[in-house]
Amino acid sequence: MERDEALAIVKPKLKQERYDHTVRVMETAIQLAQTYGVDEKKAEIAAIFHDYAKYRPIDEMRRWIQTTYLPKDLLHYHHELWHGPVGAKLVEREVGIHDREILDSIHYHTTGRSHMSALDKVIFLADYIEPGRKFPGLSDVRDAAWMDLNHGCWMAAKNTIQFLMSKNQPIYPETFNAYNALTKANKN
Amino acid sequence: MERDEALAIVKPKLKQERYDHTVRVMETAIQLAQTYGVDEKKAEIAAIFHDYAKYRPIDEMRRWIQTTYLPKDLLHYHHELWHGPVGAKLVEREVGIHDREILDSIHYHTTGRSHMSALDKVIFLADYIEPGRKFPGLSDVRDAAWMDLNHGCWMAAKNTIQFLMSKNQPIYPETFNAYNALTKANKN
Repeated sequence: MERDEALAIVKPKLKQERYDHTVRVMETAIQLAQTYGVDEKKAEIAAIFHDYAKYRPIDEMRRWIQTTYLPKDLLHYHHELWHGPVGAKLVEREVGIHDREILDSIHYHTTGRSHMSALDKVIFLADYIEPGRKFPGLSDVRDAAWMDLNHGCWMAAKNTIQFLMSKNQPIYPETFNAYNALTKANKN
Repeated sequence: MERDEALAIVKPKLKQERYDHTVRVMETAIQLAQTYGVDEKKAEIAAIFHDYAKYRPIDEMRRWIQTTYLPKDLLHYHHELWHGPVGAKLVEREVGIHDREILDSIHYHTTGRSHMSALDKVIFLADYIEPGRKFPGLSDVRDAAWMDLNHGCWMAAKNTIQFLMSKNQPIYPETFNAYNALTKANKN
């Protein structure tokens, strides 16, 4: 699928600010893919569709989780975590994208997971560092992102956990799994 | 088993400083048990034996994990985490204690776990706050411990995770599970 066609599909699904974010994630993901030898075309398409389900009603997302093979433990965590897994499902069904790597990177773009593919890491990190983002510690993650893909992702996962803990929030287990796996990858 | 008999069994297994720590954990655990309506006798025995395996050789602990039903994922984490699970096994085999609640609270006293029993919480927290301990944030945990058992354990689990993350260490999944479960318990 060409970029313009993909953007035209996603644009009506998003608010303008979220669409602008999507374009920045796409640009960042392509740069990361170039830097780390990841398939640029897959990075482009995955980035364009990563927030496809962002504005689906909560009740609809809950039904997709309940009625498909998506992990049921999502229902016990904040619905902010649902748009990735549900988005992967909808991009497959509604847009007709069947590439498993692309769909997985959409699924796990918010939480990470234990064994992240290189494409998973590119999308996870691009979403975290795109130039419109602003939060504490981000400049260090940005610096790391262009030096070492694992280290950049590790810092993003660590920051995410620390942020959520500072707000007394539960942490989705895949985010802990990502942190642990990336901690071990850092040491090798 | 009477206190003196239990202490006499554990004393030769420990260095003096660790024995002194054990006595303080015992005293703290009994006070916590009294405060929260937990069986004091079980708290006493569990506390006395909680570090029973602390000075077993690493190779011996590894063999116990490899050759029994203990969780194999322990082998991928720091051996500091092994003395709890191995200790529970050895206290059963060598001392002849078969009470499942006591053995579980020894098993999980360092890591915590998803569904902690009240006795688990008493031993986990007593080990963390006994008067000989000194580390950042501990006075807040001590204050919380006597107000609300769940909240005290939650703070201890959170501090543990934050400390390990600050040292760029992996976190044993049961510790994350404990944090998540206690976070949810806090909100109910």
